[in-house]
Amino acid sequence: MIGFSFVFVFLMWTGVGGFRFDNLTHYVNSHEEEFVETLRTWVAVESDSSDIGKRSDLHRMMDLTAEKLRVIGGSVAMVDVGVQALANGSTIDLPKVVTAQFGSDPDKHTICIYGHVDVQPAKKEDGWETDPYQLTDINGNLYGRGASDNKAPVLAWIHTVEVYRALNIELPVNVKFLIEGMEETGSDGLDALIVAQRDTFFSDVDYIIISDCGWLSRRPAVTYGTRGNCYFFAEVSGPKKDLHSGVYGGTVVEPMTDLIGIMDKLISPSGEILIPGIREAVAALSDEEWKIYQDIDFDVERYKEDIGISELMYNNKVDLLAHRWRHPTVSIHGIEGAFSAPGTKTVIPAKVTGKFSIRQVPNMDPGVVERQVTDYLNAAFSKRKSPNKLNVTMVIGAKPWLADVNIPLYEAGRAAVRRVFDVEPDMIREGGTIPIAKTFEDVTGKSIIMLPIGGFDDGLHSQNEKISRYNYIEGTKLFISFLHEVSQIKKR
Amino acid sequence: MIGFSFVFVFLMWTGVGGFRFDNLTHYVNSHEEEFVETLRTWVAVESDSSDIGKRSDLHRMMDLTAEKLRVIGGSVAMVDVGVQALANGSTIDLPKVVTAQFGSDPDKHTICIYGHVDVQPAKKEDGWETDPYQLTDINGNLYGRGASDNKAPVLAWIHTVEVYRALNIELPVNVKFLIEGMEETGSDGLDALIVAQRDTFFSDVDYIIISDCGWLSRRPAVTYGTRGNCYFFAEVSGPKKDLHSGVYGGTVVEPMTDLIGIMDKLISPSGEILIPGIREAVAALSDEEWKIYQDIDFDVERYKEDIGISELMYNNKVDLLAHRWRHPTVSIHGIEGAFSAPGTKTVIPAKVTGKFSIRQVPNMDPGVVERQVTDYLNAAFSKRKSPNKLNVTMVIGAKPWLADVNIPLYEAGRAAVRRVFDVEPDMIREGGTIPIAKTFEDVTGKSIIMLPIGGFDDGLHSQNEKISRYNYIEGTKLFISFLHEVSQIKKR
Repeated sequence: MIGFSFVFVFLMWTGVGGFRFDNLTHYVNSHEEEFVETLRTWVAVESDSSDIGKRSDLHRMMDLTAEKLRVIGGSVAMVDVGVQALANGSTIDLPKVVTAQFGSDPDKHTICIYGHVDVQPAKKEDGWETDPYQLTDINGNLYGRGASDNKAPVLAWIHTVEVYRALNIELPVNVKFLIEGMEETGSDGLDALIVAQRDTFFSDVDYIIISDCGWLSRRPAVTYGTRGNCYFFAEVSGPKKDLHSGVYGGTVVEPMTDLIGIMDKLISPSGEILIPGIREAVAALSDEEWKIYQDIDFDVERYKEDIGISELMYNNKVDLLAHRWRHPTVSIHGIEGAFSAPGTKTVIPAKVTGKFSIRQVPNMDPGVVERQVTDYLNAAFSKRKSPNKLNVTMVIGAKPWLADVNIPLYEAGRAAVRRVFDVEPDMIREGGTIPIAKTFEDVTGKSIIMLPIGGFDDGLHSQNEKISRYNYIEGTKLFISFLHEVSQIKKR
Repeated sequence: MIGFSFVFVFLMWTGVGGFRFDNLTHYVNSHEEEFVETLRTWVAVESDSSDIGKRSDLHRMMDLTAEKLRVIGGSVAMVDVGVQALANGSTIDLPKVVTAQFGSDPDKHTICIYGHVDVQPAKKEDGWETDPYQLTDINGNLYGRGASDNKAPVLAWIHTVEVYRALNIELPVNVKFLIEGMEETGSDGLDALIVAQRDTFFSDVDYIIISDCGWLSRRPAVTYGTRGNCYFFAEVSGPKKDLHSGVYGGTVVEPMTDLIGIMDKLISPSGEILIPGIREAVAALSDEEWKIYQDIDFDVERYKEDIGISELMYNNKVDLLAHRWRHPTVSIHGIEGAFSAPGTKTVIPAKVTGKFSIRQVPNMDPGVVERQVTDYLNAAFSKRKSPNKLNVTMVIGAKPWLADVNIPLYEAGRAAVRRVFDVEPDMIREGGTIPIAKTFEDVTGKSIIMLPIGGFDDGLHSQNEKISRYNYIEGTKLFISFLHEVSQIKKR
């Protein structure tokens, strides 16, 4: 009886195929507070890649990341990817890219985890209810800039390796990390690194894993596509300095009026992109795709409530998902150089830069879009017969990415979700852009999967960004499970 | 011989009618550095009335002003004008208004000097070549925010009184001061004060003098009119928080698109105001007025060069001056709530507030303009069928002011200019707004004159604002001369 019990308990302990899942997840549960504390340390670093004034914080963030990977036994490198050209002609150092490697067993698959530790801008006065750089736990939600995008997911991956190491359990696959610090501003320098290391760092990589996205609802998801993004600056300049609107108003053609005039020509009130050629390039929606969208668990009413608006651009599920994932759109983000503070200022701004972006989908080509937008705006500006100058530049041109979901890698993702959450994941696309996905695919030829752990309501790029403890901790378990599932894929 | 010489020298010394002009101007010349140092101290105070975060600096500026007036013997009061209502529903104290009195001889005229010591916003990164709050002398030009608008003119008036006192020469007129700290944001609280003190502080005032403006060219000027200003906030709000443009773009109607759409309907590329009723209200240009404009010394080419543009809205002198002084115009100043920093941010702003103003001229009425603009924008917005909300508010509604130049007060101004500069002044109007001029006129019924000492190229409200030492010091002499000329006006 004693012998039988022992065998039974041993099987429970190690699970099928020696996968000691309960053991690993028990470790995760018992280290939850430690994992949250590490996230707190990371969120406290204002690694805003769009603000060159915070570049030293960003460098520090890369150092912290490298150190964390070293401590858990990784073979770590900090790769210099050169300098960033600034508008004024000078340059500053780009943050180094952190690479790490755990294991190099040729009999195992090798996965490469991509993530980023830079963040979007955030200021308390933008409407944050908490200090954006002070992780704050409210009812199990951890609020802070970068909490969900993308610091917690990066940490969850690092903790995944850490858990295996701590329990002295062999990693079922070789794990590499590629962590950058310029994702939020277009991954400057990363494309070149991938090209340069194609035959070295990436040569033995079988799969690339990205967790820089979120679920669509409370149901876990696996993501197989992202939109790209072309980000434009339209600079209108006239007077050599700002002018008093009383003293000069009525005598000069104001750059702001010109800029408003041309930006008003980008998109119609009903959401129709007015730039010729853009809509024509979009791949048609197939019946199969329509069917996938129909099957997805998505509550239009809840989406509306979450945003807090009375009407959406489209009010049925398929149109809404399609315009979120597989149609382009124009968003006007703001204007640099104009008066933007509270209060009143009677100024005629001398130089104003309108900032807008157009999300990219198959079969759009950023190079073509750049020409279409530039030609269109120049023509619209020319019609105004303004003495001011317009200069349109595309500062980000990221392609869309779309994967084949019928490969074993995606079954591994689905199986990992089933093990941890006991449900079939939603198969979704992402409206946002992970520019590097397309580059990975084009340069390395490897398969890519996105395995999100962020919640649907995490508020990425918005005020009050958060990740829940649940998603952070269960997400870590998902990654643990996924390593096992990948190890089960037959080696070719 | 000795007796003759003595009489001759004495006449030189005191001038005609006992006006010891040379004596007074000698004192000004020998105290130039001291006057510049005082201006430096004043410019160093960041008395930006539009920024509530700088309210304590503004209070300090009013204290400094009161102290300065007390030191030279004024009977000074700091008048509480209540609180300012903020957008969030709370309130903060308005800066006190400083009043002062020098002399109360019923046989003399009493003038009241109006000025302000608050300033427009200024940041080094807006494009200032020097620290805006550190007065910097470059080739005799004194650069600093508020140097010309309006700190140096206020100090020149204070120094005028100080010089008489220092030389123990009796003031030829009674002098009162009314110095406020909210001019740049609409003179909050001042109207009520003027109404309240109409029968006390203002009861014995004969003339009101304002030096809150500048010359048109290198030739000194006397100013007899100003445009008013209606400043609007157009707030478009939709989602309850900012959204990621990738995740949500294409599914929501973006407030920024709506705002750009309606602001594009305010003014045509050729400068035509598109709001019905506005142009119709403008007084016709008379032949006499046309003739005055023809006589003014104004170099269109230099104006263009000073601004740094290739083409103006109008390229002949009369049209240009008319559209600067006596026609309304729309200026779009900026947008609050949208992305305005350098770099890229992929945000859909949840709430954006467009800020624009319409300069007012006879016979426009701000109350009517408020309704015209609100109705027009609401109708334009309604056509968009947007689920977002538009809220148009007029936050400043200042009337235009126009004086009769054929009264003795204006001859006193012309004579004062002739004495100091040996030229006939340009008789000009001001495109900008000194909202209080109209209130003074309406409430007190007194005559008002504007006697500018700022240079035509001082860059008010712009980067690199300055006043020249020449204008500051010779301007002080102009005021000394003006006191004498006013004293020569026959008492009624």
